[in-house]
Amino acid sequence: MREQIIALLKERGVSLEQIAQIAYSLQKQYASGLGHEQCLAAVHSVLNKREVQYTLLTGIALDMLAERNQLPEPLLAMIKRDEPLYGVDEILALGITNLYGSIALTGFGYLDKTKPDVIGRLDSQCCSGRVHTFLDDLVAGIAAAASSKIAHQM
Amino acid sequence: MREQIIALLKERGVSLEQIAQIAYSLQKQYASGLGHEQCLAAVHSVLNKREVQYTLLTGIALDMLAERNQLPEPLLAMIKRDEPLYGVDEILALGITNLYGSIALTGFGYLDKTKPDVIGRLDSQCCSGRVHTFLDDLVAGIAAAASSKIAHQM
Amino acid sequence: MREQIIALLKERGVSLEQIAQIAYSLQKQYASGLGHEQCLAAVHSVLNKREVQYTLLTGIALDMLAERNQLPEPLLAMIKRDEPLYGVDEILALGITNLYGSIALTGFGYLDKTKPDVIGRLDSQCCSGRVHTFLDDLVAGIAAAASSKIAHQM
Amino acid sequence: MREQIIALLKERGVSLEQIAQIAYSLQKQYASGLGHEQCLAAVHSVLNKREVQYTLLTGIALDMLAERNQLPEPLLAMIKRDEPLYGVDEILALGITNLYGSIALTGFGYLDKTKPDVIGRLDSQCCSGRVHTFLDDLVAGIAAAASSKIAHQM
Repeated sequence: MREQIIALLKERGVSLEQIAQIAYSLQKQYASGLGHEQCLAAVHSVLNKREVQYTLLTGIALDMLAERNQLPEPLLAMIKRDEPLYGVDEILALGITNLYGSIALTGFGYLDKTKPDVIGRLDSQCCSGRVHTFLDDLVAGIAAAASSKIAHQM
Repeated sequence: MREQIIALLKERGVSLEQIAQIAYSLQKQYASGLGHEQCLAAVHSVLNKREVQYTLLTGIALDMLAERNQLPEPLLAMIKRDEPLYGVDEILALGITNLYGSIALTGFGYLDKTKPDVIGRLDSQCCSGRVHTFLDDLVAGIAAAASSKIAHQM
Repeated sequence: MREQIIALLKERGVSLEQIAQIAYSLQKQYASGLGHEQCLAAVHSVLNKREVQYTLLTGIALDMLAERNQLPEPLLAMIKRDEPLYGVDEILALGITNLYGSIALTGFGYLDKTKPDVIGRLDSQCCSGRVHTFLDDLVAGIAAAASSKIAHQM
Repeated sequence: MREQIIALLKERGVSLEQIAQIAYSLQKQYASGLGHEQCLAAVHSVLNKREVQYTLLTGIALDMLAERNQLPEPLLAMIKRDEPLYGVDEILALGITNLYGSIALTGFGYLDKTKPDVIGRLDSQCCSGRVHTFLDDLVAGIAAAASSKIAHQM
């Protein structure tokens, strides 16, 4: 299933290298000598977890159903416009970050506010026909989880 | 939106009285003199929270999309058979119970294991064409949240 | 540090075999052929996590400080009588169970309500001069975490 | 108990106005016309919750016991130097932010990384004889909770 998830992320516009880059930017100040390879390995390790895979499948399905107008109202409108008070996307991401402890949780909150790199690009595509309401949070969750894994390895 | 949520629960086979009854059974040993009216009021109060409403809309939509085979594979098969290792239903319920503190969290875990009353009925309808993979957990979450609210009021 | 933690648990009246037994009772219905050795290995694996170790050190220290009346009021009285609305003990246990996903979270809630075996013994020693307000929840958290690990391995 | 908590925060170097200021800075971009009074009222409302009060009493007690060298090793050394991988302080803060939903959770993560105002001052006093390992996170948790409350009111 891991290969399927990686292909799905790619199809939705996200590469593992981009996620690894965000994990790197979260950890570089604490981990001297941290390399991109180690960050990419941590991202792979996060994506190996079954619960992470199931969460990604669910969130991305909701984004895609919203793009095709196949969700009931008023849920459809909320997800299409990434309504700020709709917090289910963040709750799903917690299903990833919880597994990696408090460093992942705080890293996720930081990424969700600052939206660097691909997270910001996904977030701003809202209203262009593409819906990434869940995916931007899930990518932030994976990057934060990977950075926590790195922190505990150093 | 609260009226819409109550109607949706009814349509999916769940009344607020049934949820109040579960909240009562969780709290009766700790709260002498606890009445059904107070439990029902607590359930109403939980359903007034926007984040609870949004979580219910999302989970019930996923159940209904699974009934109509409108989810992508392998997600569809997992949700239709309520795969035990698929934990996104419990994660969504945490979006409800977290708001009511530790008594809600432990009450939810207990209900999820013992599946009393309507929770068990929803759970066992799996494989009959109806899908309640999310709803049984969300009902457990509302009941546990209501019981925590009662505990803090007594 | 793992050896120190095991010794500390022993000193406080808890053996890893007792925790493994609880994990076994949580999983036996789902995992045919589950053996005690596998449960004990899962408990060891949980105790290898740094965040689990830090949580145990903190919770057990609070129990011991309460026994020696070295906490400030009104915290001391609440911890000594295991005040039901004091939920910080359950919050600390979540620091363990979160790391093991939704099966650990629901298993913990169930154990916290039913208090089997050593968890019940710890809980009932309250008022005998011994304080186990944190330890009973932490033991439930370790057992639930181990049972989740087993579930994902089967 | 609320008055006791406010006095304790004051004694540890934190005023409610300072916390309200942080909540304001988190929400001002989303809530035009937001005033300081409303932020202060939200902070008061957060401090009215029993679970928040119990969490504060516990975390501040641990800080003070560390200052007086009254915790056992190796816990004492970890708390005194605010060891980055010791995550129990963040776990306690989650006992506050969880009650206020996903906006509180992400706000907390952001504050924990950026450490504005009084949070940064508390954090940097580490190693001066004062220990605020728990308090800086708890203050971030209260501010994030208050900002979430404001977001849901606007």
